[in-house]
Amino acid sequence: MSRFWSPLIARLAPYVPGEQPKMANLVKLNTNENPFGPSPKVIEAIRGEVGDSLRLYPDPESEQLRQTISQYYGVTTAQVFVGNGSDEVLAHVFQALFQPDSPVLFPDITYSFYPVYCGLYGIEGKTVALNDQYQIAPNDYVQPNGGIIFPNPNAPTGVAMELALIEQVVQANPDSVVVVDEAYVDFGTESAITLVDHYPNLLITQTLSKARSLAGLRVGLAIGHRDLIEALERVKNSFNSYPLDKLAQAGAKAAFEDDEWFEHTRQAVISERDRMTGGLHNQGFEVLPSKANFVFARHPGHAGETLALALRERGIIVRHFQKPRISDFLRITVGTAAQNDALLDALVDIV
Amino acid sequence: MSRFWSPLIARLAPYVPGEQPKMANLVKLNTNENPFGPSPKVIEAIRGEVGDSLRLYPDPESEQLRQTISQYYGVTTAQVFVGNGSDEVLAHVFQALFQPDSPVLFPDITYSFYPVYCGLYGIEGKTVALNDQYQIAPNDYVQPNGGIIFPNPNAPTGVAMELALIEQVVQANPDSVVVVDEAYVDFGTESAITLVDHYPNLLITQTLSKARSLAGLRVGLAIGHRDLIEALERVKNSFNSYPLDKLAQAGAKAAFEDDEWFEHTRQAVISERDRMTGGLHNQGFEVLPSKANFVFARHPGHAGETLALALRERGIIVRHFQKPRISDFLRITVGTAAQNDALLDALVDIV
Repeated sequence: MSRFWSPLIARLAPYVPGEQPKMANLVKLNTNENPFGPSPKVIEAIRGEVGDSLRLYPDPESEQLRQTISQYYGVTTAQVFVGNGSDEVLAHVFQALFQPDSPVLFPDITYSFYPVYCGLYGIEGKTVALNDQYQIAPNDYVQPNGGIIFPNPNAPTGVAMELALIEQVVQANPDSVVVVDEAYVDFGTESAITLVDHYPNLLITQTLSKARSLAGLRVGLAIGHRDLIEALERVKNSFNSYPLDKLAQAGAKAAFEDDEWFEHTRQAVISERDRMTGGLHNQGFEVLPSKANFVFARHPGHAGETLALALRERGIIVRHFQKPRISDFLRITVGTAAQNDALLDALVDIV
Repeated sequence: MSRFWSPLIARLAPYVPGEQPKMANLVKLNTNENPFGPSPKVIEAIRGEVGDSLRLYPDPESEQLRQTISQYYGVTTAQVFVGNGSDEVLAHVFQALFQPDSPVLFPDITYSFYPVYCGLYGIEGKTVALNDQYQIAPNDYVQPNGGIIFPNPNAPTGVAMELALIEQVVQANPDSVVVVDEAYVDFGTESAITLVDHYPNLLITQTLSKARSLAGLRVGLAIGHRDLIEALERVKNSFNSYPLDKLAQAGAKAAFEDDEWFEHTRQAVISERDRMTGGLHNQGFEVLPSKANFVFARHPGHAGETLALALRERGIIVRHFQKPRISDFLRITVGTAAQNDALLDALVDIV
């Protein structure tokens, strides 16, 4: 605390990301990174940009990247926004598209950055409890609000929501922007991008950090009605004209152009997820049905924190949240087959 | 305008960056990029990071980069903040360190992003006129304020301010944060970083886009008392945990480690600047004394806009601002010797 801080600063409760340990040889299953590297074509595209031209500013509009994404999803370029990771995109969404006169709704168990954004922009947030199956129930979102946001599949539960149910939420809230955060959508959930041409109040956000293996490059995107995208552009151009560097623009574009790599790696993650789920079941864990690249699991005989510490002692890092309703759970990223075996073997020892 | 926009959005007047034309063969002297590429060691360092490890998140704290910068400037790591270009750093500064109860002061002729940030964060901005020599006069900054910001050297004038005068501003405002935006400092101005250990209310911002030839990589920084840096960290961690990707962290670090390249290229820019200034003088231009990698010049017989258009017809792009007091001026980036010759030759034709 310092007398030079603006009144906002002392009130902030910043987000705490998963640990990025500097030790080698850890089995790192704590931040939902992809066990496979990015496409060789992505590597090649980035290498092609590393040179003298780095002295020049990047395209502030990321025109080529947005064009590639728009073609990929069958929308117009004016319906595509890109940013420095989906966290930056989400921050702009909170500032640009949520109304301050009513609370913004999100699940009680969800991405813990949402309430942080509320704090940053002076927006009231209101949590809506997931049902007993840890699902989002559309009827619970029929109440006055200044906006709605939830991930699909949800994090950290991994539980997905059917497209028809998402459409119900969007239809029931014609005067609010409904944001579907599809960070993990590519691991087996249907995207709501197919709905954006029907609903001017629907915005989808995605990231290249998960299924496209580019967490280290920081690229996120939003797709929706051009008026919603224009609001994001206005914030972006009042904040930082050039959020995406040249290398990120080139790498992200190449990632959307290599569908073969994308298909191959995401299917491999999905099949390892199902194997990991089976292995955990065999050891007595309850595992929520996951459509993400992680599972959310608890053991009837062991506290989540104890399990996380025991795994850590064995060089395996998973994520544990000391929060209501989920403190018994571990969020375990799906790793390579060898990493997943290491986890399952270690648990045999522990439980 | 859309009913889904938050009340803020319609009021915003976003920044308009200098054009990034997509045509080749232009003499591009409009956005103050460095005519020399980045150090070969920077290229090598970035190449070394382009690979499978891009699947992993970058270090959210940019620890190694901040350590390198802290050693370079003789401060502690806790006194260093880094961001996705100095525009992002400046945005955080406006939100974190300026007080909303009094206006934030900046020169009437200065970086045109400052009033945009004021709009984004609901801060009142108040311009303070430069004197007749286009200089910042410290006494003009002795008035109630919620913060002070100015570039040194100033942009788009290129005019620098002596360290002793900056110290006067800092001393006269012990209850406000004074931000010196040193985007162009390395082209011949003394940095105020040497003062940060004496004044808890002084913050310096810098960029790697100019003297370090990395506009395409997006890296900026701030140096000051650790309490000021902590405020910036709190905003950053409430906005985007990972603002700098792996490649940017590696490249920026290598840039601070190659002092030889830095010295060589900045001296070359300085000497070209002085040659360009001489050439313009010879053609009857008034040129403000520049300590930047651009000059600010006007001709008694030709309007700025006319000159800019005539140059453009000849394939040379410079920046012209249709604004009070400076509409007669051109801001011309110092290019390579060949580019500067092209400019001077074209002007012979025009004036």
